[in-house]
Amino acid sequence: MRPSKRQADELRPIRFTRGYTRHAEGSVLVEFGDTRVLVTASVEESVPPFLRGKGQGWLTAEYGMLPRATHTRSAREAAKGKQSGRTQEIQRLIGRSLRAVVDMAALGERQITIDCDVLQADGGTRTAAITGACVAVHDALSQLVAKGLLAANPMKDFVAAVSVGIYRGVPVLDLDYPEDSDCETDMNVVMTGSGGLVEVQGTAEGAPFSRAELDALLGLAENGIARLIELQKAALAGASA
Amino acid sequence: MRPSKRQADELRPIRFTRGYTRHAEGSVLVEFGDTRVLVTASVEESVPPFLRGKGQGWLTAEYGMLPRATHTRSAREAAKGKQSGRTQEIQRLIGRSLRAVVDMAALGERQITIDCDVLQADGGTRTAAITGACVAVHDALSQLVAKGLLAANPMKDFVAAVSVGIYRGVPVLDLDYPEDSDCETDMNVVMTGSGGLVEVQGTAEGAPFSRAELDALLGLAENGIARLIELQKAALAGASA
Amino acid sequence: MRPSKRQADELRPIRFTRGYTRHAEGSVLVEFGDTRVLVTASVEESVPPFLRGKGQGWLTAEYGMLPRATHTRSAREAAKGKQSGRTQEIQRLIGRSLRAVVDMAALGERQITIDCDVLQADGGTRTAAITGACVAVHDALSQLVAKGLLAANPMKDFVAAVSVGIYRGVPVLDLDYPEDSDCETDMNVVMTGSGGLVEVQGTAEGAPFSRAELDALLGLAENGIARLIELQKAALAGASA
Amino acid sequence: MRPSKRQADELRPIRFTRGYTRHAEGSVLVEFGDTRVLVTASVEESVPPFLRGKGQGWLTAEYGMLPRATHTRSAREAAKGKQSGRTQEIQRLIGRSLRAVVDMAALGERQITIDCDVLQADGGTRTAAITGACVAVHDALSQLVAKGLLAANPMKDFVAAVSVGIYRGVPVLDLDYPEDSDCETDMNVVMTGSGGLVEVQGTAEGAPFSRAELDALLGLAENGIARLIELQKAALAGASA
Amino acid sequence: MRPSKRQADELRPIRFTRGYTRHAEGSVLVEFGDTRVLVTASVEESVPPFLRGKGQGWLTAEYGMLPRATHTRSAREAAKGKQSGRTQEIQRLIGRSLRAVVDMAALGERQITIDCDVLQADGGTRTAAITGACVAVHDALSQLVAKGLLAANPMKDFVAAVSVGIYRGVPVLDLDYPEDSDCETDMNVVMTGSGGLVEVQGTAEGAPFSRAELDALLGLAENGIARLIELQKAALAGASA
Amino acid sequence: MRPSKRQADELRPIRFTRGYTRHAEGSVLVEFGDTRVLVTASVEESVPPFLRGKGQGWLTAEYGMLPRATHTRSAREAAKGKQSGRTQEIQRLIGRSLRAVVDMAALGERQITIDCDVLQADGGTRTAAITGACVAVHDALSQLVAKGLLAANPMKDFVAAVSVGIYRGVPVLDLDYPEDSDCETDMNVVMTGSGGLVEVQGTAEGAPFSRAELDALLGLAENGIARLIELQKAALAGASA
Repeated sequence: MRPSKRQADELRPIRFTRGYTRHAEGSVLVEFGDTRVLVTASVEESVPPFLRGKGQGWLTAEYGMLPRATHTRSAREAAKGKQSGRTQEIQRLIGRSLRAVVDMAALGERQITIDCDVLQADGGTRTAAITGACVAVHDALSQLVAKGLLAANPMKDFVAAVSVGIYRGVPVLDLDYPEDSDCETDMNVVMTGSGGLVEVQGTAEGAPFSRAELDALLGLAENGIARLIELQKAALAGASA
Repeated sequence: MRPSKRQADELRPIRFTRGYTRHAEGSVLVEFGDTRVLVTASVEESVPPFLRGKGQGWLTAEYGMLPRATHTRSAREAAKGKQSGRTQEIQRLIGRSLRAVVDMAALGERQITIDCDVLQADGGTRTAAITGACVAVHDALSQLVAKGLLAANPMKDFVAAVSVGIYRGVPVLDLDYPEDSDCETDMNVVMTGSGGLVEVQGTAEGAPFSRAELDALLGLAENGIARLIELQKAALAGASA
Repeated sequence: MRPSKRQADELRPIRFTRGYTRHAEGSVLVEFGDTRVLVTASVEESVPPFLRGKGQGWLTAEYGMLPRATHTRSAREAAKGKQSGRTQEIQRLIGRSLRAVVDMAALGERQITIDCDVLQADGGTRTAAITGACVAVHDALSQLVAKGLLAANPMKDFVAAVSVGIYRGVPVLDLDYPEDSDCETDMNVVMTGSGGLVEVQGTAEGAPFSRAELDALLGLAENGIARLIELQKAALAGASA
Repeated sequence: MRPSKRQADELRPIRFTRGYTRHAEGSVLVEFGDTRVLVTASVEESVPPFLRGKGQGWLTAEYGMLPRATHTRSAREAAKGKQSGRTQEIQRLIGRSLRAVVDMAALGERQITIDCDVLQADGGTRTAAITGACVAVHDALSQLVAKGLLAANPMKDFVAAVSVGIYRGVPVLDLDYPEDSDCETDMNVVMTGSGGLVEVQGTAEGAPFSRAELDALLGLAENGIARLIELQKAALAGASA
Repeated sequence: MRPSKRQADELRPIRFTRGYTRHAEGSVLVEFGDTRVLVTASVEESVPPFLRGKGQGWLTAEYGMLPRATHTRSAREAAKGKQSGRTQEIQRLIGRSLRAVVDMAALGERQITIDCDVLQADGGTRTAAITGACVAVHDALSQLVAKGLLAANPMKDFVAAVSVGIYRGVPVLDLDYPEDSDCETDMNVVMTGSGGLVEVQGTAEGAPFSRAELDALLGLAENGIARLIELQKAALAGASA
Repeated sequence: MRPSKRQADELRPIRFTRGYTRHAEGSVLVEFGDTRVLVTASVEESVPPFLRGKGQGWLTAEYGMLPRATHTRSAREAAKGKQSGRTQEIQRLIGRSLRAVVDMAALGERQITIDCDVLQADGGTRTAAITGACVAVHDALSQLVAKGLLAANPMKDFVAAVSVGIYRGVPVLDLDYPEDSDCETDMNVVMTGSGGLVEVQGTAEGAPFSRAELDALLGLAENGIARLIELQKAALAGASA
């Protein structure tokens, strides 16, 4: 039995609060249970040098964890003067995931910067960040449409992410911290609304895992992501931010 | 007239949300109007090397601004690899302000680390941070009492801070961003519950200011801080975090 | 047809040169076609602070690319003063992969540091590094046995890695640079001699990929890795380094 | 009684040596007793990017302390690779103080960089630096006039700074190190020749201070600064550097 | 007697392997006995800002040591985030040595970057690097001639370097690590094919050295460098890389 | 003829001001003409970790140039966050030079840190620094003797340094900036009172130099250093600092 009493294929309570802060073009507080990530999408009317004059846009992401988002305080990266390897890995993943669903040519010479800041951590911060970023980027792009800067929203599809893992021998969906810190295999899956895989990252923490286990985990993730995308759509169908 | 229609001596709506996140010993979201700062107080059962074996505690503070807390996105300090001079100045001020009201000998060989992270900025982030930190530190210390680690709360007095300034020739209390970016003189005042001054930092942005203006600003600040301390007490009198 | 004329399931010529340099306990030049990585395994008779006194060992990895290992010169990371996110991601992957096959308790309070330096790059440097590291670590551990410091080699299994990807619509094994820079989906797979998966990292570079494509890629990788492990065993069966 | 036997309202011996080094447009060794700061003002015929084309100048300041300016050697900031928060706070203060008395439009698109390097420290290094910088900047600007690059000296007023504090219960002027390290309240005041306040920074080191104490300190500072400005004028009236 | 049994005036076996890697315009593995340095020369069709529009080229060098090139592993400079003083000293020396023999005007607005990476160290890495760089730069420049970008090779002369030292009272040529770590005086000499001195750097490790000793060392170095230049010429006379 | 009208073998006016600042155990302002370097020697009663318990001392040096010591302002290294290669090269040279004349065993487990800060530069800052450091270290060590911490001064010999170079075809002694920036060959020589060579660093800036030129330069340097050491002795014979 899972520490949270959830079923093996049960997500934590998911919540999207759009318009959580007021300055960003898109601003969403995403909650996967006790994991709370503030995701903003900022639009800048220019692109990095390597893309200038190519008629297409760019999207990049940054990730941070407030020092006391975690059980024990961790050092502030700005004070240490460098971002950890983990942070860099996560922000690269978020950027790739969102770039997979935005039509860069349709975006034009603009850059979207996604900032994902973890206010409270309870496992799955990167998957919550990707899932929330989809909503925040959608809002930011809708604002460009509303302002008449774009004819149509250049988001081609939805994208969401979830973690799956083998906890005490059982494949489970959406690991929280007690599960994450005690599981044998941990996998993050990023998938689009049309069911295409964008990223699959599976790691054996202890014993290696088998193809059969991999298949079971992918099955759980597919269902979980389909449900997350329904929730994203419902959130976006609400009053605009 | 002030852009916000406030009276010259009127604070913005002030709100303290205790227990805003769950891991920190003290966790408060403090709001001065649209300025929102998440302040956590973390307790560590050790002190920095220069204090070891001296039988007293220490308190330090860190400050950060989420990249899109502001009107236009500012670069993430962790990504730039260094904290700005402004950030360092603010976190030193917060630390000094709180050390003024905590009895370090009574605290014993423990360290309190205050983290102030600005979720949304609309002027006065440092004064909101100090004012919220007083509540967060009080909660963290109360928890040490509740756990039996301390006999009494070592906070000797309350402390709060407010900005005052001369806006279009008129001394006003608690500047918001439109005022702050357009005022002639800006002063931050930190004061205790018993009316003692902890810090006074006044800066002429344009023309120098006179002693008479300084006196008027200090008068506004004294009243404002007295009101803030009433609100801190009311917040702490509510259900514990 | 592949640029190199290889079959879809054909590895590049693989070569392990043991004892390539003389100071390291294990030193292997591994070649996957024109990709050449010098891998050394260094033994240190101590562990990092977080493991002291716990009776177990540690293994960590670092990765670097000589500035002109690539078609155009890339800046030297030591001169820039920081390792890129890509470098950090790769060295974390190499470390996890090798830790999966070394019995840390049997190793005792020692640390193995793997250095992977790319002398010439033609795609697949991280998979070559992992595959070569297995041989280098085996040699380093054998030397501990030979010196009487360990009763048996604490490597529990072999481990190797290969890239697979969908190139012009066809799943292919062991991508070289021309394929890698032009493929739709890229996956790195790390597997043990007994067929267990250690890491699976698949990324859609363009369009998302389907479960069927994922399955095809995993099949190719399994066969490729089985072949790589045969070659590792053959290399280790040769005259000792 | 003060350790130096000075009266409560007595400055230390003040000395300005103009033309102390020969390359800088303005170069002054300023001494407040045993505190000795070498201040140079350098003129550059360009402005930072944010001011280009706006027809106005800029003035900025940097501050450093030689490692053995102090009783015990402190680490060299260039070797540590970063400037401390204290250093940054001081250099920001010096820059603001001098900008308050230079007419940036009259200066034209030029930048003045003030370098304040403490050769020997005995308390009050920042106030000595500001006071000396006024003379050095005046000399640098006079040189622009002498060269025919400016019609008139764009310095609108004099500016000087002094520390005041409550030492053993008594408000005193111009603290030296023994007083500074043992005082209850420490305030730095920056004022112009016409008596306007530019900066007031008061800090309670121990017990908070009252409005009455603040008033007494400001009174001392006003007199001290008036005297410093007389001395600046006398120094500038001497043979040109 | 020398640990290696060599005569006092005997070089170690010297080997140049041209075309050691395939991407760089010049790529040479140079071996001085067990010291092995991979030297690449990269051509870039632009010059640093300070030379733009001056019609001349530039040549610069970088140096690194693989972490386990040495007896015990040394920390990776990219991971430490800075290059040591020793590294910077060596790369400045290599750059100056090669600039002495390349006609910068004839090179035109191009930059040659030399990368010297020590794969295995046994003393004399900087002298091997300079000696190998001469061959690598020659190859890179020949390629520019072959491509028709230059009419003639702008290398005006050969340059090579060797270490000499006083080992157990005897002046010896080309110190290996056991000699280097135990010698009284160590000197690096850089000389051209026409016998001109480019650099002489002698250091007393223990007792100071006399003019007579200096003369003896310079005599050994002259002969050694003449022999190295013969070997460079022979290497370049071989089949082109 | 030399720009300064000096004879080819003539030093600039040399001056040592002992006790230039008051906190350091040794503090000397050394002047070689217009080159002015403040050298302090600080004593610390401990040694770096690699020497602990070995019963011997250590001596190290740091070097810095005030930003406006030079004709045009150069960036502050503390603000840039790193020391240049040139700075590191110089401070390593100063440290080696002084270690050559201090008996580390006689010093005991203490560290001497030399700080050389250039107040005004006119060529030859590193040689002035070494020459002044000899006096400063002597004073610092004498103070240890005076305090009864050492039985005798552990300085075994004097050491001084001077630059020599070929300026417009003529070998000259003690180059000033106009000569230094326009000479063909530049050599720094460090020598002891008993005439032993500690360091010889000669660099061809333009055309290589011959053995005959090298010999002429060494001859000039020997005489110049003998004179500098007389001046050091005279300075130390004056009233103690």
